[in-house]
Amino acid sequence: MTRVPHLQALAERVFARLAPRRGEGSVARYIPALAAIDPARFALAIAHVDGRTGMAGDHDIAFSIQSVSKVFTLALALEKAGVEVWSRVGSEPSGTPFNSIVQLEKEHGIPRNPFINAGAIAVTDLLLASEGPDTAIAAILTFLQRASASTGPFIDQEIAASEAATGSRNASLAHFMKSFGTLSCAVDDALNVYFHQCAASMTCGELARAGLFLANKGVDPLTGERLVSEQTCHTILSLMLTCGHYDASGDFALRVGMPGKSGVGGGILAIMPGVASIAVWSPGLNANGNSLVGTLALEALAQETGWSIFR
Amino acid sequence: MTRVPHLQALAERVFARLAPRRGEGSVARYIPALAAIDPARFALAIAHVDGRTGMAGDHDIAFSIQSVSKVFTLALALEKAGVEVWSRVGSEPSGTPFNSIVQLEKEHGIPRNPFINAGAIAVTDLLLASEGPDTAIAAILTFLQRASASTGPFIDQEIAASEAATGSRNASLAHFMKSFGTLSCAVDDALNVYFHQCAASMTCGELARAGLFLANKGVDPLTGERLVSEQTCHTILSLMLTCGHYDASGDFALRVGMPGKSGVGGGILAIMPGVASIAVWSPGLNANGNSLVGTLALEALAQETGWSIFR
Amino acid sequence: MTRVPHLQALAERVFARLAPRRGEGSVARYIPALAAIDPARFALAIAHVDGRTGMAGDHDIAFSIQSVSKVFTLALALEKAGVEVWSRVGSEPSGTPFNSIVQLEKEHGIPRNPFINAGAIAVTDLLLASEGPDTAIAAILTFLQRASASTGPFIDQEIAASEAATGSRNASLAHFMKSFGTLSCAVDDALNVYFHQCAASMTCGELARAGLFLANKGVDPLTGERLVSEQTCHTILSLMLTCGHYDASGDFALRVGMPGKSGVGGGILAIMPGVASIAVWSPGLNANGNSLVGTLALEALAQETGWSIFR
Amino acid sequence: MTRVPHLQALAERVFARLAPRRGEGSVARYIPALAAIDPARFALAIAHVDGRTGMAGDHDIAFSIQSVSKVFTLALALEKAGVEVWSRVGSEPSGTPFNSIVQLEKEHGIPRNPFINAGAIAVTDLLLASEGPDTAIAAILTFLQRASASTGPFIDQEIAASEAATGSRNASLAHFMKSFGTLSCAVDDALNVYFHQCAASMTCGELARAGLFLANKGVDPLTGERLVSEQTCHTILSLMLTCGHYDASGDFALRVGMPGKSGVGGGILAIMPGVASIAVWSPGLNANGNSLVGTLALEALAQETGWSIFR
Repeated sequence: MTRVPHLQALAERVFARLAPRRGEGSVARYIPALAAIDPARFALAIAHVDGRTGMAGDHDIAFSIQSVSKVFTLALALEKAGVEVWSRVGSEPSGTPFNSIVQLEKEHGIPRNPFINAGAIAVTDLLLASEGPDTAIAAILTFLQRASASTGPFIDQEIAASEAATGSRNASLAHFMKSFGTLSCAVDDALNVYFHQCAASMTCGELARAGLFLANKGVDPLTGERLVSEQTCHTILSLMLTCGHYDASGDFALRVGMPGKSGVGGGILAIMPGVASIAVWSPGLNANGNSLVGTLALEALAQETGWSIFR
Repeated sequence: MTRVPHLQALAERVFARLAPRRGEGSVARYIPALAAIDPARFALAIAHVDGRTGMAGDHDIAFSIQSVSKVFTLALALEKAGVEVWSRVGSEPSGTPFNSIVQLEKEHGIPRNPFINAGAIAVTDLLLASEGPDTAIAAILTFLQRASASTGPFIDQEIAASEAATGSRNASLAHFMKSFGTLSCAVDDALNVYFHQCAASMTCGELARAGLFLANKGVDPLTGERLVSEQTCHTILSLMLTCGHYDASGDFALRVGMPGKSGVGGGILAIMPGVASIAVWSPGLNANGNSLVGTLALEALAQETGWSIFR
Repeated sequence: MTRVPHLQALAERVFARLAPRRGEGSVARYIPALAAIDPARFALAIAHVDGRTGMAGDHDIAFSIQSVSKVFTLALALEKAGVEVWSRVGSEPSGTPFNSIVQLEKEHGIPRNPFINAGAIAVTDLLLASEGPDTAIAAILTFLQRASASTGPFIDQEIAASEAATGSRNASLAHFMKSFGTLSCAVDDALNVYFHQCAASMTCGELARAGLFLANKGVDPLTGERLVSEQTCHTILSLMLTCGHYDASGDFALRVGMPGKSGVGGGILAIMPGVASIAVWSPGLNANGNSLVGTLALEALAQETGWSIFR
Repeated sequence: MTRVPHLQALAERVFARLAPRRGEGSVARYIPALAAIDPARFALAIAHVDGRTGMAGDHDIAFSIQSVSKVFTLALALEKAGVEVWSRVGSEPSGTPFNSIVQLEKEHGIPRNPFINAGAIAVTDLLLASEGPDTAIAAILTFLQRASASTGPFIDQEIAASEAATGSRNASLAHFMKSFGTLSCAVDDALNVYFHQCAASMTCGELARAGLFLANKGVDPLTGERLVSEQTCHTILSLMLTCGHYDASGDFALRVGMPGKSGVGGGILAIMPGVASIAVWSPGLNANGNSLVGTLALEALAQETGWSIFR
């Protein structure tokens, strides 16, 4: 059904197509560590379920995956808490920006989905349930390392500290949910875990590798290890498609045709079920807060390969 | 990749699973013709791209497809007006009910997507562009007949008249868009076409057949005729997935895993790309205005077959 | 309690203070007849309950009173329909612009107050109740002539036609209310009356005279004729104070301290209970759609006289 | 202009009229100390600018004045910071409930007025500017004692602690404003002062006495001491009229016709400029969160006396 090309050549071809546009878009400036990133960084990594890979550009430079981490914490929470997740958070696109509080007021403190900030904080609260923040942070990091089959992923403590220092809006969201009973743990603990999760750092190569279990019904295709149930995998892909790019999710689905999740660090993880996991990184963001060149690269990749869940 | 079972047996098995729940949900009551429908009606029709079919229940009873028609008028508009469509309507999930005007005010008269009422009226305006309402209505009906390879589909004039008589909310949406310049034709003409489009009547069997081109990249797999371009087909499926069930689109994607479009008449059209087009009909609606038993039937079908674009 | 100065000298002094700012602000441009007004027009008229007056500037030039007319139609409706008015319209400030539809959706088709467009249309519907639009329009004009003790006030048919031709937003509001049952008459009739009411034309002198009954508990102080009950008078003044300047009502109350009602034609009617009725006219509007120089003139008048209901 | 009756007889007459309705409404239950109040409490106190008083019911029982305190902190802030107040907070009615965050998002972190919770927290931040929270709390208490010419007013520490323990919503508002730069001090300090301010306790007699300077252009009529400028007094009365009863301010203005400020403890302070300050207390609240019997008592008082700023 899908053509499987020579992946390294494919990666280089897509990279070459977009390389002239490196540096377009606006780098996130709300914390110094992100603002200092070279806007010309650009990387692309393709990990096929058969073990082959294709890499291009700065694919071995670690970057802050930011909200891409929400995919992995949701995976942990669904495995740990099951359907209880849906008593804390919805599964619908929000129609509003990533940090909107309007929707929370209208819907009595239940975030629309796990990929807006409020939803991810609510998910974090579930991870905390019986453990302290340090244990929860360690569990997240362990999961990232296990999924990427690498000790590379780490928490950038400087970024975590910056997130906390500038986190008034997220603190507001958390206290708001607390007032409705959506959070069961201490607000400060939930925020602590959330800020550390956002500060996870990985290379594009590691990120593409870490997404492979999502392209293979929950099982790491290279180790055979099941990371999440088939149902959890289906749920995550579905949410990535409908909610993964904030208020540009519909446009991403239409252009790229694959479930994807972006972060303000400029990273995007996209999954072609049964085929491949793809990670891109380019720090310049478009008006919706998603990587500008990264999105274009995924669109080009989809054109080159014909990969799309709608075909 | 997908198992292709004996379709008639499959249709009967799914029908039998849900038959005990016939009559659940609330029949739409805003017009007499819909309110008078027997709530126990239930039909399921599967049309495979290889020409085989499976049918169960009231599959040869015509019903009002209502908003399912938006799929077909969007197809016509994309073929006729191309990218100009996106200057009139967006491609994002709305996060609000089907007839909300709040979003229109916030976004200066541009509807979020073609599947909410305002968006469909804006699409209708494009179809009108160079023709009168009667010509536009005829073009829509012709398309339905061509896609279903049948002369069965018709416009129920009684329902069209009822829609017009109770259409204050839609009139409000249309005048609102007119005030922002989203509509170029006369408001009354656009509403006229819209009310007739909503009154299209088809059987489940005809509807499943009519969706086959969407399961086959725009080409009717049985006649070989191209109805829309491959890109238009991709666009429609993507929008069905992200926006096809109003404010329950995320939930439908998660449970059913196929692009789908519902109507308040109780019909749903779902597409498994490369495989099949499925139509269900059961008039009782759930809280989100989508067929309650119809949604459950599609969920059961997806479980039985493993069909999902996320697998 | 309040000083009563020599009114002609007062009017001239206030006029002279603001004359240098004539022409500031933006003239309403949504209909040609308003856009064509000389922005340097400026008039001030004070009518004291003891019969004395003070006039300055273009006080004998007729202008389109636009939404100032809402004061008089509310008076008519309260006298005609009594408390039934409050089943159609609220009595709270809206916190949103004059033509917002968001509030209507949230509050199920009941406008927040009679001075936003939707509220005035709902009031119009009450005036229509048992009569045709021509009779209702005639009743409004008769009331304006009676209150101003003059045959001067008239309906500018050119403006009424322009209002209708550009009235999509108001049509949208009316159909929206109709969908909720707020309107009992035909939408087109209610809009017809509303557009004519907005087209009422008066001089500043006539308008100040027409407001005198509101400064005297409902009784015309010069003829002794009761135009409305004391309670209706109280209700109108209260609503003028809290809702008379759209989303700048709080600011107007704070600066001017008198109940007032503005129109996009650049007119404002202000009432000092027990003392005087004041009309100003200057076509340039501020960001909130109220006469810029007119508001400043009333603020200056309040400073000169000490008039304020909060003193 | 206004009749000045025998005040003690007046107080008793109004009290007697409403006494049968004691206990109606719902006592605020969000903190234990408020929930424990006897719902049958009812008090009325009238303080005339000439020094006479009228008292009835539980007028010497201290109660939690809650949001009525916002009148006094606004007075302090306007005297201290002058027009800088308006860079932090608006002066318009909100059209939304007292603790809504929707408006804050739409208007970039600037609360609509100083009498909704967010606005009062922003005012608190101004009081803190150069001092610690203990100093600011002491200043507020000192002002209440000075205005009431009594050492009676105190901060109920149990209530302050309860406010803090259940203050997630207010914490959310504060962090939200912090994210927009509306607050310059530490969020926890601003909340600390705010929670103590809400916990101010006074008797009805003390509260009526404390409001006298507002009925006399800023000067305590009995001591001759100026507490605030005439302009500050005017500003406060104007805001009480347009914003003092949350989303029922228009209704209160229409029924009572006097500037007033309510609190969820069941107290209301109303001012008749040049005449009197009136305090009522009855813990049962109406649907808008204002004292049900207290509002009715003020309406009866207005009817008995003819007091209204609109007459």
